[in-house]
Amino acid sequence: MSDLGIRPAAPTDIPAIVAMLADDPLGARRESPHDLAPYHAAYRRLADDPNHHLVVAVREDRVVGTLQLTIVPGLSRRGATRSVVEGVRVHAEERGSGLGTQLIQWAVDESRRQGCQLVQLTSDATRTDAHRFYERLGFTASHVGFKLTL
Amino acid sequence: MSDLGIRPAAPTDIPAIVAMLADDPLGARRESPHDLAPYHAAYRRLADDPNHHLVVAVREDRVVGTLQLTIVPGLSRRGATRSVVEGVRVHAEERGSGLGTQLIQWAVDESRRQGCQLVQLTSDATRTDAHRFYERLGFTASHVGFKLTL
Repeated sequence: MSDLGIRPAAPTDIPAIVAMLADDPLGARRESPHDLAPYHAAYRRLADDPNHHLVVAVREDRVVGTLQLTIVPGLSRRGATRSVVEGVRVHAEERGSGLGTQLIQWAVDESRRQGCQLVQLTSDATRTDAHRFYERLGFTASHVGFKLTL
Repeated sequence: MSDLGIRPAAPTDIPAIVAMLADDPLGARRESPHDLAPYHAAYRRLADDPNHHLVVAVREDRVVGTLQLTIVPGLSRRGATRSVVEGVRVHAEERGSGLGTQLIQWAVDESRRQGCQLVQLTSDATRTDAHRFYERLGFTASHVGFKLTL
């Protein structure tokens, strides 16, 4: 396959990002690709804060992957800074290409550059393929992830 | 018990916060209450960013609990803003007093005030009492939490 680049997301990438978020068994129920206004508003909040890194993976000028990395300082673990990975998506036509690995590797490398001591993420309990993927990349499934919808 | 207050943590609260972080089966191995420098540095990073809320619970001028709430915008779930709760600790002498519930309720209320649609946290898989506690408060253990130490 041709070369892949990972770069900060631009506003013009939002439709492609939302299409990937929605093209997913869980995402299909909770995204609105035909109403992009809330996504543009969220994009502006992310772009205004240097602790958020919304990136896209691009192959031949086509957006084929995305993730969001957020840097979170904290007191615990001797004042450790951690990073939180959210919204990881790989385009359906790219699955199995190694792109997911490249995206997570980018997140790990960027976390190191930002001085983080820990990278963390949660994955829905039903995504068992994703769990094996993260374990292959060296992550440990040491925690239970709790959510409360407001 | 006498009235409890929850307020933003001040630099003078750091020794009490770190003592609580360390007085814990997991924290005992990873905190350094005799070297507070890294905690002061982390405190300054938190205090400089309005998206972080490090709070303490205080009873009779004594710090008896703490948590950190971080506001994280994002594109997924129709541009939902979520909050992430970290570093929840209740002083040993206060366990069973309902203080944990009051701290989490504060985090949920503050998340609503900040326009969040979701509150999330992870809890070490070995903390089974904590898991029951979060489920009683309405949280769902829907995710697996992965960590990678750098």
